[in-house]
Amino acid sequence: MGDRVLVPWEENLRNLPAGLRGGVYDGAGEPIGDLADVVFYVVPYGRTQRVDLIERMPRLRVVQLLTAGYEHALEVLPAGVTLANGRGLHDASTAEHALALMLAAQRELPRWAADQKERAWRPHYTRSLAGSRVLIVGYGSIGAAIEERLAPHECEILRVARNPRPDMDVHGVADLHRLLPRADIVVLAAPHTPQTEGLIGAPELALLTDGALVVNVGRGPLLDTTALLAEEGRIRAALDVTDPEPLPADHPLWDAPGVDITPHVAGGSATFYPRASRFVDSQLRRWAAGEPLENVVPLRR
Amino acid sequence: MGDRVLVPWEENLRNLPAGLRGGVYDGAGEPIGDLADVVFYVVPYGRTQRVDLIERMPRLRVVQLLTAGYEHALEVLPAGVTLANGRGLHDASTAEHALALMLAAQRELPRWAADQKERAWRPHYTRSLAGSRVLIVGYGSIGAAIEERLAPHECEILRVARNPRPDMDVHGVADLHRLLPRADIVVLAAPHTPQTEGLIGAPELALLTDGALVVNVGRGPLLDTTALLAEEGRIRAALDVTDPEPLPADHPLWDAPGVDITPHVAGGSATFYPRASRFVDSQLRRWAAGEPLENVVPLRR
Repeated sequence: MGDRVLVPWEENLRNLPAGLRGGVYDGAGEPIGDLADVVFYVVPYGRTQRVDLIERMPRLRVVQLLTAGYEHALEVLPAGVTLANGRGLHDASTAEHALALMLAAQRELPRWAADQKERAWRPHYTRSLAGSRVLIVGYGSIGAAIEERLAPHECEILRVARNPRPDMDVHGVADLHRLLPRADIVVLAAPHTPQTEGLIGAPELALLTDGALVVNVGRGPLLDTTALLAEEGRIRAALDVTDPEPLPADHPLWDAPGVDITPHVAGGSATFYPRASRFVDSQLRRWAAGEPLENVVPLRR
Repeated sequence: MGDRVLVPWEENLRNLPAGLRGGVYDGAGEPIGDLADVVFYVVPYGRTQRVDLIERMPRLRVVQLLTAGYEHALEVLPAGVTLANGRGLHDASTAEHALALMLAAQRELPRWAADQKERAWRPHYTRSLAGSRVLIVGYGSIGAAIEERLAPHECEILRVARNPRPDMDVHGVADLHRLLPRADIVVLAAPHTPQTEGLIGAPELALLTDGALVVNVGRGPLLDTTALLAEEGRIRAALDVTDPEPLPADHPLWDAPGVDITPHVAGGSATFYPRASRFVDSQLRRWAAGEPLENVVPLRR
């Protein structure tokens, strides 16, 4: 019985480097056959990350995730197994969704959709994205991808990141309170860490100008939900992630005025798949050639 | 009694060149006082274009419109009066709205808004703008402004205009039928002329691939409404302009599946006002200095 790689898409199987054997597991149902021969496991992308299967793979050498987050895999990762994540694969999709949320809120698309349901033609003048000052909080690859897409929109951009980079006009978190009053739109694109949890709470929201828009495409806990609800009607929000998540049916956030919610779909649009599939191919090619993998998660142990 | 200019905003009055007298008329209600001394009339921007007031201005020298369209003024313009339009003032706002409509449709924002009303967290994977092939029909200043905003979105752009410019990869209308089957998204940004009326009708819609999106930020009659309704469910549409317009409450377009409607609001967002106000100032400065005005409409008579 030879070694086997477990890939999420048929296409990866077709592109398999010579000498490798493989099977497809797309995350639907249970994988077919014994997993004892799996040496390279690409965890299928989806709500349920089947990292629990790892314990059935005694010969495992590599776990490849398609998510940027990897905490869920650390708990079950055996010593000596390489872990690689999907950092970067979701950037374009997430940044695109951030633009969609910003533009929809500024141009009042939810209002026009409601008017359409009432068959009512009631034009009025709206805000615009052009001329707005946009504060990007979290300036990693997603933050940069958002800025790239904002560039032609005649906005002024402000940037805050964990590590200030004065040469690139990226401020540190210490400047956040000074910058918030100047922002028309705040976009949260940071990961969830002990440092970012509750980064935007009651004191921060209070610093925002009336009618400011908070967009969250990072993680729910970056924004204090209770504090946001307390600013109901004064601060607008467009949230792809929430805290709690998923949002329970009886949660008051659902019908808070000026709050638009999408159910954590920023990263998972059509543009993710070709990218992710090409990345899996390239990782397997590297592995078969004995080259170092990309996106290896540094493990402290 | 000296000459007087009639401007739409107080700001224009404050910026008036030395030697000019002025009054403000913003289009709400009737203008105050006699109009017999008005020599320069800036028609206030709004649904109702008060060009009918022109006949009460015997000393009129210039009519300045803030719309790009000027047909409505031609009918009442006395011989010898200069007509200037608002070409370019709406480009940024209109292009921004076009992006908003495209992104909202691709990322299914109307669906998420409906789910939010039901308090339902039901994620699924959507289309993206990235990776789409976008055909821009009408490649004047608005078409170019749309392309500029699409540039960071990893789309392929195709262009059709009245005048082909092979050096800039702009095709003529003769190529339209050849290009339509390749488009995921068609954006209409042409003016309404006898040549563009019904430009996208049943034969053109039939050439589009299943699920293609037609965005109209040009004029309603570019797109044959009846033909669109016949493609219900196969072709998606996001329309800021409609035919007829305004859309009557009993029109079937209101609840056609996959059709999003906004009530002709693309050009009139916040970003229009500072632009338009600065333009009025600049036209008055030119006029006071005896310089040629910008955006003068060439009149054949």
